[in-house]
Amino acid sequence: MTSPAKYDVVAIGNAVVDVIASCEDTLIDELQLNRGGMTLIDEAHADTLYAAMGPAREVSGGSAANTLAGLATLGLDCAFIGQVADDQLGAVFAHDIKATGIDYTTAPRPGEPSTGRVLIFVTPDGERTMNTFLGASQYLPKAALDEDLIASGAVLYLEGYLWDPEEPRAAMRRAIEVARAAGRKVAFTASESFVIERHGDDFREMISNGLIDILFVNEHELATLTGEADFEAGIAALAGNVPVLVATRSANGAVALANGERADVPAEPVAKVVDTTGAGDQFAAGFLSGHVRGESLERCLKRGAITAAEVISHYGPRPEADVKKLVAEKVG
Amino acid sequence: MTSPAKYDVVAIGNAVVDVIASCEDTLIDELQLNRGGMTLIDEAHADTLYAAMGPAREVSGGSAANTLAGLATLGLDCAFIGQVADDQLGAVFAHDIKATGIDYTTAPRPGEPSTGRVLIFVTPDGERTMNTFLGASQYLPKAALDEDLIASGAVLYLEGYLWDPEEPRAAMRRAIEVARAAGRKVAFTASESFVIERHGDDFREMISNGLIDILFVNEHELATLTGEADFEAGIAALAGNVPVLVATRSANGAVALANGERADVPAEPVAKVVDTTGAGDQFAAGFLSGHVRGESLERCLKRGAITAAEVISHYGPRPEADVKKLVAEKVG
Repeated sequence: MTSPAKYDVVAIGNAVVDVIASCEDTLIDELQLNRGGMTLIDEAHADTLYAAMGPAREVSGGSAANTLAGLATLGLDCAFIGQVADDQLGAVFAHDIKATGIDYTTAPRPGEPSTGRVLIFVTPDGERTMNTFLGASQYLPKAALDEDLIASGAVLYLEGYLWDPEEPRAAMRRAIEVARAAGRKVAFTASESFVIERHGDDFREMISNGLIDILFVNEHELATLTGEADFEAGIAALAGNVPVLVATRSANGAVALANGERADVPAEPVAKVVDTTGAGDQFAAGFLSGHVRGESLERCLKRGAITAAEVISHYGPRPEADVKKLVAEKVG
Repeated sequence: MTSPAKYDVVAIGNAVVDVIASCEDTLIDELQLNRGGMTLIDEAHADTLYAAMGPAREVSGGSAANTLAGLATLGLDCAFIGQVADDQLGAVFAHDIKATGIDYTTAPRPGEPSTGRVLIFVTPDGERTMNTFLGASQYLPKAALDEDLIASGAVLYLEGYLWDPEEPRAAMRRAIEVARAAGRKVAFTASESFVIERHGDDFREMISNGLIDILFVNEHELATLTGEADFEAGIAALAGNVPVLVATRSANGAVALANGERADVPAEPVAKVVDTTGAGDQFAAGFLSGHVRGESLERCLKRGAITAAEVISHYGPRPEADVKKLVAEKVG
């Protein structure tokens, strides 16, 4: 027997602050950055890159945390687990997630390292290049998982980025066990192609063992995960192994498959792409917000397209407009 | 004999980080905030207000620092003096001002209090309500003034906000002495009506003693400073006492008077006023950028109108667009 869920979604993810600056294309080359990707860096490298960066704005980030912020803004009941340090940026992260209406009680970690931060260089085309110093986030221990909390969410949402550092990776195995034992669904975002290159075997094993109920990938991640360069071949390779598969293709829209059904949606038009940071995270939020209400695949995708379009129209990875109203107007 | 200036402008101001969140009008009432104004608060009050605030973005602020960031973006050589604490927000402030191309060497202050921050509530009409915890900034000591640096700027730019805390107020007297002894000009922004209510006698004495060469006021500050409710009467009361007077009137444009001449400029049209934070600061930057090049009053005002319009079209108090190009296109 599954008890009624207290939360719609409980998410575990890196608890980091984004440091966002616009830059010219030439700076990406000069600093030898991995354009469009996410690169893990140590604190010394973060200091070097920060010194080379233009004036920035700080906003709370983290992939799963961004998705959860989107879900809360869309009216869902949510809780977050993730570890900051006991410092000013940690207080910023905690404030912002709680101010969005999300329950967040993970204790800050005392001492060094500091709260994680992501140095994001945004080129004139709106593309973001992320350089992540995980800081305190990389030491999220199994002990920080509130198992009652995890068991009380209808969906447990996890980000692949958590597989990079050792402690969170181990903790995630336990989190999935707890959720499944409580009869909850597990949603997973593959996060990034390079993460899949490092941990693809783990991800594929989780999928084939039936541990993932809802899988979010973009087309690059799909290719890396399946080894299929062709998008349709990638979809076909995964579709039978996850109950719900959502694959996004940036400006080319998105596809979802579940129970032998398939839906496709075009991307929502955007007047100007300012900063693509958070596009995938907010697409996931839009989709999940419909999915937990039992909406059709097409309506879930449409929601995702709308929330993704909102977030790429401004700097920062979380909604700024009233996305609940936007979705109501456009999807009904 | 006046030696050639190394810098176009040296500014002294509060070194603070803005914490900006949009809010409904009702929250301003609930929290009993001074709508549209700047209120000094202590750290405990800052914590209370922060807890009541929505998700925020952090961007470097400080009135004079904002003006200087505008001037540097417009191509002027600038240096800043102001005190942060030795903490993460202090590092953010220092990074952003240096990343704008401004020389900044004031040492961070160890220990408590932390770096100053301004909690800014932005209502749907774009109006900002500021609540300032000055933090380390309020202890800027005379010893932190690099007198050679002050003497090496063609213009010394000071903000009235510095008169609130005791140590900076004392330090400013010395800064003005140093600048005048070196044959430099002193520019002063009155900052805010409530500041003038507290320190108007000091300001009026400085003006009547001929210590201020360029004075920036908005219409409310003009009224408080002169005791004249009528704008033209206020202008008339001050015009003979400062070589250059610049008075701004929000959407009603601005006026400048110098050497018996007067120029008026309408406000630059803005598609949508997002956040008025920094409007006065950037108007001052635009005006000064023309003034140091010996441009006409009308052209200086036009520059100010353009840079003010840019900053109110987005969140945050410093330019985000290429204002140098904007000014070149519109003023030539």
